[in-house]
Formats: sequence, structure tokens, C-alpha cells
Amino acid sequence: MSGETDFMPTCPLPLQQYPQVLLAHGGGGRLMHQLIDAFAATFASAELNRRHDGATLRIGRERLAFTTDAFVVQPLFFPGGDIGRLAVCGTVNDLAMCGARPLYLSVSFILEEGLPMETLGRVVQSLQATAREASVQIVTGDTKVVDRGKGDGIFISMAGLGLIEHSQPIGPEAVRPGDVVLLSGDIGRHGIAIMAVREGLSFETTIESDCAPLTTPVLKLLKAGVELHCLRDLTRGGLAAALIEIAQASGLTIELDETAIPIRPEVQSACELLGLDPLYVANEGRFVAIVPEAEAARALAVLQTEPVSAGACLVGRVIQNGPVGFVTLRTSLGTTRVLDLFSGEQLPRIC
Amino acid sequence: MSGETDFMPTCPLPLQQYPQVLLAHGGGGRLMHQLIDAFAATFASAELNRRHDGATLRIGRERLAFTTDAFVVQPLFFPGGDIGRLAVCGTVNDLAMCGARPLYLSVSFILEEGLPMETLGRVVQSLQATAREASVQIVTGDTKVVDRGKGDGIFISMAGLGLIEHSQPIGPEAVRPGDVVLLSGDIGRHGIAIMAVREGLSFETTIESDCAPLTTPVLKLLKAGVELHCLRDLTRGGLAAALIEIAQASGLTIELDETAIPIRPEVQSACELLGLDPLYVANEGRFVAIVPEAEAARALAVLQTEPVSAGACLVGRVIQNGPVGFVTLRTSLGTTRVLDLFSGEQLPRIC
Repeated sequence: MSGETDFMPTCPLPLQQYPQVLLAHGGGGRLMHQLIDAFAATFASAELNRRHDGATLRIGRERLAFTTDAFVVQPLFFPGGDIGRLAVCGTVNDLAMCGARPLYLSVSFILEEGLPMETLGRVVQSLQATAREASVQIVTGDTKVVDRGKGDGIFISMAGLGLIEHSQPIGPEAVRPGDVVLLSGDIGRHGIAIMAVREGLSFETTIESDCAPLTTPVLKLLKAGVELHCLRDLTRGGLAAALIEIAQASGLTIELDETAIPIRPEVQSACELLGLDPLYVANEGRFVAIVPEAEAARALAVLQTEPVSAGACLVGRVIQNGPVGFVTLRTSLGTTRVLDLFSGEQLPRIC
Repeated sequence: MSGETDFMPTCPLPLQQYPQVLLAHGGGGRLMHQLIDAFAATFASAELNRRHDGATLRIGRERLAFTTDAFVVQPLFFPGGDIGRLAVCGTVNDLAMCGARPLYLSVSFILEEGLPMETLGRVVQSLQATAREASVQIVTGDTKVVDRGKGDGIFISMAGLGLIEHSQPIGPEAVRPGDVVLLSGDIGRHGIAIMAVREGLSFETTIESDCAPLTTPVLKLLKAGVELHCLRDLTRGGLAAALIEIAQASGLTIELDETAIPIRPEVQSACELLGLDPLYVANEGRFVAIVPEAEAARALAVLQTEPVSAGACLVGRVIQNGPVGFVTLRTSLGTTRVLDLFSGEQLPRIC
């Protein structure tokens, strides 16, 4: 009964333009943002309206972060990770980006009838191993099985809960002109690792996904008292999409220095071969921290003590008088290029 | 990498018996319990080990309930509800059964490419309408799209957070001999409503799902100070599975009186026609409360003031000297029947 009547007059979904859901609606680009904006308008929640994967909530006397993600990656296992490791990292990283200490996870499986039990077992073991690595506990779950041909092996949805133990307001609204953009390491490995397996490509060295929990460097930055204006992990849509979202939400301009952005030579070559722009390729163990310029050296020093962010470096800055809500790239040739959101992901089912 | 090595020696999954995942592994019966026990052994979490859909957690200074469920029901729309309403009710009810006040929900969509946007819009509207009805907010979400033929329209995973504002220990471990079993209303309507649509059956009157949020009656019981030993909503596996789980977890016997269990005549007829046992048919808006006998009259009076539990009645009692961990049924013929878990659900994809 519910939802059957009076729907059309108030439906904010992009019905006219897109009568059907496209792969690009899940791709981290413009179409996905359009859909999320429609959801946010419907759910009418201030927390959901922000382009951020986690919500910050006050419950009783505590401030918590709460997040969810679905994982539909293909193949289930890839160099550097698998769907289980990806689920835990993705969820924990969303919590860390809220400046929260990740504590508890829930896991919901949608399994396809006929899935080898051995495959499920490997994924479950990987979930647990990664949860232990990230110091979180999987405390509740659910399992559904769908008929053969109505799923694709394993889909995982994970939700996470974390405790916020500081009073810094971290988010695009805290970003100021003059801030600098720190990147925690080289980009593009997750997307290329998946693409290589999927397309049966082999390079001289196997490119492994960067998939990893980012809790420790973030908690260390907080513990060191570094003033953090914004944190964002780089997932679907890559470095470009993450920074465009922040620029749009803050109404400022972010200027990137292409020569400062670390990209491994084998990733660069693979991108050239495949016609991909590494700035838009997905990562699962990288983040940006936007901090006041005066905090940059201290923040980098903290990040560089942790293996997962040992390659941290300064890649750009926030400026006042640029085009509002844009990210510009000063290229190695000295020219300037405006980065725009793609309509979808360069490759589907990356996470 | 993770989960790739050293897996087999410690894998607790039922590999030998069941080399592949079967529909019954998601069906609320014996096979699902076997799988969940294996997950719990792997995740090594005390909270997950309990046969209950929600975990009770202490975070900072607060006690919270945290739960997740996946929804894969077919068809997406059915008399009395739809997948969106089902998701909110299922999640909110799990929290209520922990004795928590449901506050926040997350929603994770796995959409199949080609899904009509209008269908998604109706589901999103229903999610929001039901969230409003249940006084909860949807605060965070995620959307993934899978290729055509790799999903089935819409799958939803939802997680929920609630605040526990009392100090009663509610759960199977609090159940005592002499307690009575209160049932909040007639059973079997959700399962039969789905089955009727799926099989194209029509009865004299349309049987509507009982799908509804159960928060209000539970919070009213708590507010009235009724001593609650155990609460459980009746979902997959029906009244029988819920009580068998409680009997097993408490190590006691539950004796049901068949003549006291309300079943509408049209549901009874449909069950006879379809060869289903209504005690095992899924519900989505019914629960049992196990309370001391001395509290029964007061608890029933509270329940009967709420429309969703107006038909509440006493259907059984907990006894000491029966077969440990069993549920027995005194039938209308005066005989006694032992209720056992089925290996799976009588019908798949009911929620």
C-alpha cells in the first residue's frame, strides 16, 4: 500500500531524463550525485544531504559516526584484496573520515544460490582478518540467498559505527582559503588492479590494490592535535571526484599541482594503455587531508610515520579567487586544466 | 591476499555437508542457523553468537542496539507493503526487540541496471513514509548498480541504531520457568500475502501483509514498567522458529496452546490449500513477549491499547521439566506435538 499513491507529484528522482537505472548511477560521477540528491530530498535529513559517506550523530551523551556501503566488486578476489577486505576497509575508512574511532561493524550478505561454500568461507575469513587489523568488531549480520541467476556470487553491505572523541568540526564547511591539500600516497592502484584482472592484462609487475584501513594515520593526526579541516577517502571517481565534491560543498577553488601527485610508473603506463585518467581511478586506501598551511609540515611528519601513509605529500591548495566550486590542475606542461565530474565511473563494479 | 592462505584449517563453514550455498541457507531454518554459527565462530564476537538479530553495545556512556538486515523480497510490491516498508519495519523491529528506542537508519541499495526509475522512486517514497511512521531518520546511504542479469531489480540492506534507556536484561537468558508467552496478534499474513501474489492465487478477501513497526507497543511496555524477559519479532520461520530459538538459547521448554493462537480463517484456508503450516509462515509485524505470569494481565492491557497489537493474547508458557530446548504444541485434538526447525524456509525470498 505504502508508496503506491501520490507518488509522482513529489518524486524528486530524475524520471524524465533517465527512465531507467544505468550502471553510471552507481559510478561515483554526476549521475550518482543526481540520484543521491534526490534521495536526500526525499529522506529530508540534514545529515544525508552532505556529500559524504558517513553521518555524524548525537546519541544520548555521545557523538557517533554511522555509515554504510554496498560492495559488488568483480572479481571477488584480486591482487591486494578481495570483497571482504574491501568491505571492512571501505566502511572503516568512511568512519575515520568523520574523525571517528571505528568500533563496530554489521555485515549483510546477499548470496547467489550455488555459490561455492569454500568461496564464502574465504571471504568470511578475510572479513575477520581485516576487522582485526583495523581494530573493529563485527557484531551483527544477516544472510539472504537469492535464486541462481538473480545475484552474482556475493554482495556485501556493511554498516559501521564509530565514536567521535574530539570537538573539531571536520568537513567541507571548515575548509578555508589558504588551506593546503595533503594526499596520503600514490593513486590509482585499486582501479588498475581490478581492471587488469578483469581484462586479463598482465604488466611487468603485478599491480596490487592499495585497499587498507586508514584509521591509524587519522587517529594519530587527531592525537597530535593537528587542526583538520576536511578528510576524504578516495574511492569511486578517484582524487578528482573527491576534491570536486569538497570544492562544490565549500564554494571554494582547489588548485592541484600535477607534478606533485604520486603515481607509480606501472600505474601510469597501465592508464595510458587503457585510456584512463589516473586522477579519476578508484583507490581504497588513500585519503586527502585539508589543513591550514601552517599545519602542513607537522601533519606530513605524522602521516609519514605510518606505513599506509608513508608517501604522504602536499599536492595542492585552496584558493579564494578562482572559479567557485572548481578544481583546477596545473599540468606538467605549465597549462591549467579544469577537472569536471564524469557522468559515471570509468569502470563499473570497482567496489 | 587476505583470506587467500591458511584458510581451510580454520574454516568453520559447513563445507563437507554443503559444498554450495542453497536457498535454504537464507531461509530462517536449520541450515541458516548452521551458517550463522559458523560466521559467529569466525567473527568471535560474543554479541554475534546470540541468535538474535540485534547486538547490544556499550559505546562511551550509552547503551545502543545495532542491527542489519538484507531485503530481497519478490515481488517488490505486495498487498500491505513493499520492499521499502519491509526494510524499515524489519530493521526498526529488530531494535525494538532489543528494548531500544529506534533512532537512525542507513540504507544501501543494490540496483539492477535497467530498473525503471519510477519503481525506485516508489520504493524510496515508501522507505521515507515508513521511517516517518516509525519515528526514525534515514541518515546515510549508498547505491551500487550491477549489470543487467546480475541482480533482481532492487536489493536493500538496512542497518539501524537505537538507544537503550532502561536497565532490564532482555533476552533468552532472562527467561524463567513459569513465564508466559504473549503473542501480539494473528499470525501468517505476511507469508501468505507474498505467496498469493507470487502464485497468482486469489482468495475471497485479499490477504494483506501484517508488515508494521512494533516500536510503540514495546516502548509502552517499557514505560509501564512491565518486567520483560524476552522479546522477539516473528519473521522468517514464523512463530515456531522464534520460540524454538528462545527455548534452545534458554535451555527450557515452551509449551504452546494451539487453540489460543489467533489465525484468521482466510489465512488458515490458504495454508491448507498451499500445504503450509501457519506456525512456520513469516510475519513482519508480530512479536512475542515473554513475561512473568504475574505481569501477563498488565502487559496484555498495554498491548491491546495499540492498533498494531490490539489482538494480543496469551499463547503459551515456559516450563521446567519438559524436554530441554524444545517447543511443544498442545493441539486442538488434545494431543501434543513437538515443533522442530525446518531445514529452510517454506518459501524463499519472503523478506
